[in-house]
Amino acid sequence: MSRHISEQYDLELAQIKELLMEMGGMVEQQVNHSCTALVNHDDALAEQVRDVESRLNQFEVELDDHCVSIIARRQPAAGDLRNVVSMMKAITDLERIGDEADRIAKMAQRMTDDEPPTDLYADFRSIHENVGRMLHRALDAFARQDVENALRVIEADEEIDQAYNSLVRKCVREMRDKTEGIENSVNMMWAARALERIGDHSKNIAEYVIYQVKGLDVRHGGDTEIDPSED
Amino acid sequence: MSRHISEQYDLELAQIKELLMEMGGMVEQQVNHSCTALVNHDDALAEQVRDVESRLNQFEVELDDHCVSIIARRQPAAGDLRNVVSMMKAITDLERIGDEADRIAKMAQRMTDDEPPTDLYADFRSIHENVGRMLHRALDAFARQDVENALRVIEADEEIDQAYNSLVRKCVREMRDKTEGIENSVNMMWAARALERIGDHSKNIAEYVIYQVKGLDVRHGGDTEIDPSED
Repeated sequence: MSRHISEQYDLELAQIKELLMEMGGMVEQQVNHSCTALVNHDDALAEQVRDVESRLNQFEVELDDHCVSIIARRQPAAGDLRNVVSMMKAITDLERIGDEADRIAKMAQRMTDDEPPTDLYADFRSIHENVGRMLHRALDAFARQDVENALRVIEADEEIDQAYNSLVRKCVREMRDKTEGIENSVNMMWAARALERIGDHSKNIAEYVIYQVKGLDVRHGGDTEIDPSED
Repeated sequence: MSRHISEQYDLELAQIKELLMEMGGMVEQQVNHSCTALVNHDDALAEQVRDVESRLNQFEVELDDHCVSIIARRQPAAGDLRNVVSMMKAITDLERIGDEADRIAKMAQRMTDDEPPTDLYADFRSIHENVGRMLHRALDAFARQDVENALRVIEADEEIDQAYNSLVRKCVREMRDKTEGIENSVNMMWAARALERIGDHSKNIAEYVIYQVKGLDVRHGGDTEIDPSED
């Protein structure tokens, strides 16, 4: 590849990455808005999330197209190809995170104004904070090809799973203890589930960083014993 | 591309596709076994599903590798590239279906031997049959590039969603009406949710068929007004 062609390629790749980061920012906002809508019973904010959802879907299709087109025209090899493949995978995860935010918004709209089980809300808010941090860090790691931060995201997922399981147990207890207001506990459980999945997708994005930088596939508990300083 | 190179490429592509179909067969079996384990309270069968799950994960990583390698070495363009990209996407969906089957198996193991709410089981079995048919048809359509069958899969998804929503409503009613045995209703709800997601992934696979054959992205309710005879 001549220097000129290679510079063109880098430029195109950078443009796609910029769009991907823009999509990432939108998705982060969707997650935050949907969770805020749920704990505050804010119908208007939930409605806003649901409106943005279709724009995110469009974004996914367009970005995916860009990626296929750059592979077809530039025929990247090795590391460059890994970059594009990782971006395509990250786009899918971002879109799925958008879907989960949409689900949380739907649950927010279904929440009735019964006396809220306060500790469930506090737990949900805490999981939201942790998942939000995880997603933000995953996107940061993706933007900077930062293996160290990617590994921290992967580690954080287990904590989320534990907090999620504890919240679900509380929801079930709540449902058993009082026969009225059961719908809110069910909705809360679905919303928590969506948050937990957002954590999974964030973990996926972090794993692509390691795949890009190291050429390693660490999905499914593959070897994550990577020394970040090695890079 | 000379004829010789092109034949080599076709051969490699056919091999990947064969592996993908093998993975598809494993995934179908996982779905059937996990659902059977749930309605029959068959712990041993559920355990078997959970054992196979890690083999599926390995399958995904290997197949994905094959796809990246064929792009890097053969630099396919246009239709050929679409084929490989579709396969990569389908692999991800198959692996996620495997995850959902694993979740159903986990719920099967949690089911206690309380008097089962018979109609919930009947509803679950009926959704399982429909989702199983949908997945099978999606894989068939993928193998044969059969747009007509792919469109039928996409249409079927709405029916699944309706049956799923009705089952969830019944579960919530069940929980409200009796305070004991609430766990089984919750587990049933999670399992139904997993089935509904398997329907979504099957729909995704069907959409890749249309993308491959027509070069059209019909995700997110894009135009599916395709005349199959046109092909």
